[in-house]
Amino acid sequence: MVSLGSRSISKIRAGTVALNICLGRARIFAEAKIFLVGENRAVRRKTRLDRTRKREKMFTLIHQDKNSKARLGKVTTAHGEFDTPAFMTVGTHATVKGLMFKDIEQAGAQIILANAYHLFLRPGIEIIKKAGGLHKFMSWNKPILTDSGGYQVFSLALYRKISDQGVEFQSHIDGSKHFLTPEDVIKIQETLGSDIMMPLDECVHYPCAKEESRAAMERTIAWAKRSKDAKQDTGSFLFGIVQGATYEDLRSDCAKRLVDMDFDGYSIGGVSVGESSNLIYNIIELVTGLLPLDKPRYAMGIGYPFDILEAVERGVDMFDCVIPTRYGRNGTAFTNYGKIIIRNAAYTEDFRPLDAKCGCYTCQNFSRAYLRHLFNAKEMLGLVLLSLHNVYFFLDLTRQIRQAIQEDKFSQFKQIFLMNYNHQTCA
Amino acid sequence: MVSLGSRSISKIRAGTVALNICLGRARIFAEAKIFLVGENRAVRRKTRLDRTRKREKMFTLIHQDKNSKARLGKVTTAHGEFDTPAFMTVGTHATVKGLMFKDIEQAGAQIILANAYHLFLRPGIEIIKKAGGLHKFMSWNKPILTDSGGYQVFSLALYRKISDQGVEFQSHIDGSKHFLTPEDVIKIQETLGSDIMMPLDECVHYPCAKEESRAAMERTIAWAKRSKDAKQDTGSFLFGIVQGATYEDLRSDCAKRLVDMDFDGYSIGGVSVGESSNLIYNIIELVTGLLPLDKPRYAMGIGYPFDILEAVERGVDMFDCVIPTRYGRNGTAFTNYGKIIIRNAAYTEDFRPLDAKCGCYTCQNFSRAYLRHLFNAKEMLGLVLLSLHNVYFFLDLTRQIRQAIQEDKFSQFKQIFLMNYNHQTCA
Repeated sequence: MVSLGSRSISKIRAGTVALNICLGRARIFAEAKIFLVGENRAVRRKTRLDRTRKREKMFTLIHQDKNSKARLGKVTTAHGEFDTPAFMTVGTHATVKGLMFKDIEQAGAQIILANAYHLFLRPGIEIIKKAGGLHKFMSWNKPILTDSGGYQVFSLALYRKISDQGVEFQSHIDGSKHFLTPEDVIKIQETLGSDIMMPLDECVHYPCAKEESRAAMERTIAWAKRSKDAKQDTGSFLFGIVQGATYEDLRSDCAKRLVDMDFDGYSIGGVSVGESSNLIYNIIELVTGLLPLDKPRYAMGIGYPFDILEAVERGVDMFDCVIPTRYGRNGTAFTNYGKIIIRNAAYTEDFRPLDAKCGCYTCQNFSRAYLRHLFNAKEMLGLVLLSLHNVYFFLDLTRQIRQAIQEDKFSQFKQIFLMNYNHQTCA
Repeated sequence: MVSLGSRSISKIRAGTVALNICLGRARIFAEAKIFLVGENRAVRRKTRLDRTRKREKMFTLIHQDKNSKARLGKVTTAHGEFDTPAFMTVGTHATVKGLMFKDIEQAGAQIILANAYHLFLRPGIEIIKKAGGLHKFMSWNKPILTDSGGYQVFSLALYRKISDQGVEFQSHIDGSKHFLTPEDVIKIQETLGSDIMMPLDECVHYPCAKEESRAAMERTIAWAKRSKDAKQDTGSFLFGIVQGATYEDLRSDCAKRLVDMDFDGYSIGGVSVGESSNLIYNIIELVTGLLPLDKPRYAMGIGYPFDILEAVERGVDMFDCVIPTRYGRNGTAFTNYGKIIIRNAAYTEDFRPLDAKCGCYTCQNFSRAYLRHLFNAKEMLGLVLLSLHNVYFFLDLTRQIRQAIQEDKFSQFKQIFLMNYNHQTCA
């Protein structure tokens, strides 16, 4: 405890001040936070407001395409920025299947998606906490978005029982029983050190009766509120997830009520679960029309190149999908001229790269004939090289999309891309 | 056809000349090879001799360790140099299992081993020929040594029938029947564009009766002679393979007769096929004592770190083994302090790298806990990262060996390495 004379501080007020303290013959220079008696609460509120303001700057809308709702933006997180529209490479188990992070980064990835449900079950949150957080555990120092696991609990768990309180489920790995509340799920993601968190939500399958869809939507909203209240000031962002199945009134209602709660961004969940493309696009169009312009929008689990283009056109900023690595492992490559099934005999003596336009390591070094040989010989490198190509392809697609928006040419870009892509000249 | 006046060439002689030709008002500058009538044959012989002389420079003995037979050397091929003692990473099917060539190169690989038998069966030599050779097919521009497939025919083929003429066998992949002569095997490797070729040889298993071993050795010598005669002037080197099982007189006889034939280097085949380590080291010691100092020696399929050290001490320059990638895929990492079985529960919360001394990408970025998680979650990246670490470990071991030889400290290095390695402080 140091007793200060009034001379040592030029003006006493709450806030940060530079101190120049004389203690006998010693001089101490320091910076200190000053709370005046009775003002602590006000100062804390102010600090919280400051942080909120900072958080509002999470998203910068750089340019709005003149001929569509496509937007060019930038998201700033504690682990750096990423440009939007962004494709987030999926690293469910704290690994993008088969790929080294240095290669994913070189391919242009600015953000990775991981999954709280999977990491909670394996290796367990305590291990990742002890490792110093998920970034350190998996050696990825750029932004990480974590999915809450809502979708996984409903699609993977051996058994689940949902109540307003939370969700009880049995692990799909070892059958162990767990109970998680929305508050638990936020804490898990904060422990992981996620840059962008998703609240626990309730997904329904397609088709789903309206009353069931409404109940799930209501629960999703209630859980979103509880998640927001549970959230600490750790520098993480929290999105609200719009549910409501394929019912326009439910989706509208959900979107509006979440917007009223003021989240850092908004996800469109429960799409691409079996419904037609047109239904997906309609729901996306409806929802983005209700979301604030100054917050990022994320279409969860989307999707194919044409889905991404349609969603960008409707104002979506963020995407994630397992397609690049899943298709890569199965021997399918995405190219500007459609898909290539690399095992096809047509590629036996085809010494061209997968895609002549592509700048990835695979296309810069290897032919279709070599890649086909690797798949035929059941060589792991085949899976790795095709996965890397596909990841690059999706990242490059969003790079091209961003450039087209910047030049107000998104519609032309989309048209030309789809013309080439659907023409399948090389498959 | 251009008729030249004597003035246009300053002096007519065989060889390469600069031409300065006047054709009316046009002047043509060119370089041409001139053969004088009747001298063609002599010139061709001279060219062949020049190439032979160049080939003799394949191996440079840089330093001989003062306290052992360990040697520091350099091998120069059409695709660049590699330092010896060298560990050659195995890329059987034109791929080092799971690893990208850029990462292998970054780990310090200067030469890769591929297998003529496997590539002959799949994808087939014609495809690799059309691709422009094996270097281009697999996008590796450094030296390649190809094994003839002698060992594979005897260990993998469904059926085999050996005669002095060659070997008839059934593919282990599709049951297709093939017949290959020693000449065919040289042609295959020349078509692949191998930098260092192995002749077809006959391997025997351990234990093997003396007469059978002698017959196999005699056939190996006869085939070595035929291989040498069949070899074209393509810039590839050809080694002789010393066989003779565990019989010292057979090994000596084989070594001497191959040395008389003057190969570019010498392999010690048929070791590490089930016999004890002492038997292996004795045979290696015996054989290297009979080989010329100015040619590289290659112990085929060796081996574990301690095997490599024992063989280097006995004057071996080149090694290959599938151990690094095979063990990596199975979850075993080699470290300076012994092997680590990464699935062990002991590593659950072990946030140290596999080997604190290691400079590989895996050790620079990931903990044992993370790698264990990848193996537990059956994630491909685990196999990839452990394989890369192991490849780096073996390459780094030979790097350290070379440095120790340079400083005449090989024996001390061996002693300290083995003391740490066998102590297993971290396993």
